[in-house]
Amino acid sequence: MEPWQLSAAEAAGRIKAGTLTAEALTRSCLERIAEREPVVKAFTYLDPLLALNSARRVDKGYEPGILHGLPFAVKDMIDTADMPTSHNSPLYEGLRQGRDAACVGVARAEGAVIIGKTDTVEFAAAGRRALTRNPHDPTRTPGGSSSGSAAAVADGMVPLAFGTQTGGSTIRPASFCGVHGMKPTHGVVNTEGAKRYSHTLDTIGWYGRTPADLRLVAQAFRFYGIDNPRALTPTGLRIALCPGPNWALAAPEAREALATAGKRLEAAGAIVEDFTLPPPFGEVTEAQLAVLYGEGRGAFLAEALTDPGRLHDDFHDRVNNFQGVSPQRMLWAYDLAAECRKLFDGFFPRFDAVLTPAAAGEAPVGRQDTGNPVFNSMWTLLHVPCIGIPCIKGPNGMPVGVQIVGPRFGDAELLDVAEAVSPVIMG
Amino acid sequence: MEPWQLSAAEAAGRIKAGTLTAEALTRSCLERIAEREPVVKAFTYLDPLLALNSARRVDKGYEPGILHGLPFAVKDMIDTADMPTSHNSPLYEGLRQGRDAACVGVARAEGAVIIGKTDTVEFAAAGRRALTRNPHDPTRTPGGSSSGSAAAVADGMVPLAFGTQTGGSTIRPASFCGVHGMKPTHGVVNTEGAKRYSHTLDTIGWYGRTPADLRLVAQAFRFYGIDNPRALTPTGLRIALCPGPNWALAAPEAREALATAGKRLEAAGAIVEDFTLPPPFGEVTEAQLAVLYGEGRGAFLAEALTDPGRLHDDFHDRVNNFQGVSPQRMLWAYDLAAECRKLFDGFFPRFDAVLTPAAAGEAPVGRQDTGNPVFNSMWTLLHVPCIGIPCIKGPNGMPVGVQIVGPRFGDAELLDVAEAVSPVIMG
Repeated sequence: MEPWQLSAAEAAGRIKAGTLTAEALTRSCLERIAEREPVVKAFTYLDPLLALNSARRVDKGYEPGILHGLPFAVKDMIDTADMPTSHNSPLYEGLRQGRDAACVGVARAEGAVIIGKTDTVEFAAAGRRALTRNPHDPTRTPGGSSSGSAAAVADGMVPLAFGTQTGGSTIRPASFCGVHGMKPTHGVVNTEGAKRYSHTLDTIGWYGRTPADLRLVAQAFRFYGIDNPRALTPTGLRIALCPGPNWALAAPEAREALATAGKRLEAAGAIVEDFTLPPPFGEVTEAQLAVLYGEGRGAFLAEALTDPGRLHDDFHDRVNNFQGVSPQRMLWAYDLAAECRKLFDGFFPRFDAVLTPAAAGEAPVGRQDTGNPVFNSMWTLLHVPCIGIPCIKGPNGMPVGVQIVGPRFGDAELLDVAEAVSPVIMG
Repeated sequence: MEPWQLSAAEAAGRIKAGTLTAEALTRSCLERIAEREPVVKAFTYLDPLLALNSARRVDKGYEPGILHGLPFAVKDMIDTADMPTSHNSPLYEGLRQGRDAACVGVARAEGAVIIGKTDTVEFAAAGRRALTRNPHDPTRTPGGSSSGSAAAVADGMVPLAFGTQTGGSTIRPASFCGVHGMKPTHGVVNTEGAKRYSHTLDTIGWYGRTPADLRLVAQAFRFYGIDNPRALTPTGLRIALCPGPNWALAAPEAREALATAGKRLEAAGAIVEDFTLPPPFGEVTEAQLAVLYGEGRGAFLAEALTDPGRLHDDFHDRVNNFQGVSPQRMLWAYDLAAECRKLFDGFFPRFDAVLTPAAAGEAPVGRQDTGNPVFNSMWTLLHVPCIGIPCIKGPNGMPVGVQIVGPRFGDAELLDVAEAVSPVIMG
């Protein structure tokens, strides 16, 4: 077994035990990248010598951090002090920022080896798509906007990678690529240094191959309760099986994934209960769009004024309020979201987690359509933690996942549930 | 009259008419700065040649922007591509970022001459204070955290300057320095590139010498309704005279300012009505602190891990949750804020504006105590627009202001009210 094949948690264990170095792991990942990158195209920036030097510096460190020696890829709309941050936009080609984004700073301080930048939909929002291909079928999208990060983790190029989620940009690619992904409670991880689209929605997320990998990153960010994990088993866990208000948009394989996950959990002893969200939740998907477009008006104003000719029309559309979102509509959306957040928290501790689709189906063919975010965007607006878990293969052999969702700030508890249910859901 | 003595709106008029150039105005401001800076100490970075070159570039421009040729100072925790951004922190001394913060980008694209960086409380939050003195009395603080920006506008060094407000960092210094200040609706101005303290609270604000100056900046940011100003007179305006839940903390001169503003407005024909906020508002000040400290936990984590020795203890306190804010407490604060935001919007259009204290009294003596933010912090959490207006002189001859407050997204309407009431309130 090559080091690149190890999960983050496994690799961290070997590094701690002294049987693996940051340098050896980074070198193995770089070899995997060199082999696969011509097909997968996950990276926008990769300097092998820089990465190896970062790894050697970690190996020389006095105090091992939580992410000690683990190669970590960064979505290319999150700033890095030692690499350009291009946002997949001609406006920022080769842009060098003077300091790391807050999330990168934390990962680096905890010993992560920042290995390179991964391709993204332009500004993690619209416009140009990533060049990245789905490692399971290069004719298909890995999803977006965290395209390169999801694909890189799925393909063994790196054990961990940062994405972001404003609509469905972390959890949907996790489903399409067959990896675990986490979108934590909004606001817990500082988004400073990541491109702004919507301050109400933008959330830093990450990918790993197991729930234990996701937990390592949550530990680095000092999540509430993260240091008191509960060793749970599926037996007796109360799971709300929630097709949600957008069920009509789920392809057969997405429906099958949810049903399969439910059956597998029930067979493992969990108490799985059909769960319908009450009426106000039916409008949360629409409210997310109002917030997204309303806040998008200000998000790209500087770019639209500074370099209009090179800014994609999609962003001029947002600045020009192409959806005609009124302040009244935004207030409706803000106030509905606030009401539903409180309501949703109230479903706990009656349930340990809500189980719901992670994507509308398999990854679409081509590069342009990165998939429908509709099974993610309402949770993003609700600010609740979501963990994507692979489940079945669809009719084309592509991965199809599900997600579990918890109450606001219930991230650590949801990780406990994920560790218990992930092996069952994966079958 | 020297050009530096012109308000932003006056200077903009002359530049438009061709009787003043960006270069001449910038040169005049630089002369004023050279004369006064030894006493006021408003700037952390100022390169006269760079500023003059920026002004000449504006003079050569084809299309005049909304802020064409107006010198604009930037609080030194907001990124600028051509000047360092030091955050008044030893961690970021001389830091060079690769691109402008979003607000700076907009101002620059609209023709503003970014003239220099102004001193701030460390990270606009805690720790080290600015060196800046109050231009009205150098033994006193100009307030914080936007210390240098408020003082620079008050002292004629620049017609316009960016500040920020997370507690009371824009409106309180406006009161202490006797200038107009605006804290717009939260989220309307993209905070990207300004240091994060609290994503729920951080708001970009600005200073000018008149409401018309404030309006220019709001125009640059394409505020809803800003292009349809109403020419109002004080006659018939419905003003809610609102001491607010923290009235007990108001010094006699703050009480006198509110009473005087109310009387002057009444004498000018406004309908001034005593107004008491209903009970849930009594807890909003406490809720703001819960959000501030709760979100501050993540805001400074990267700094605390990366360079603990040089980070002020105040920030370690926040990372270590020195106030012991629990997730439950944060949820209480978030949900209370959401409830009160909706309630507050409901007071309009019954009123045209809420009139309330801008600060607890005159600027304190010394540099350490930048004043109590308690008359600002609840409005910051409520996300509503606030405009600070100078009113009286206190017992020590220092300025004491008031503020008018509107509903969320009512910024343009509040500016209309400010233009009508400011000359009356100033007496």
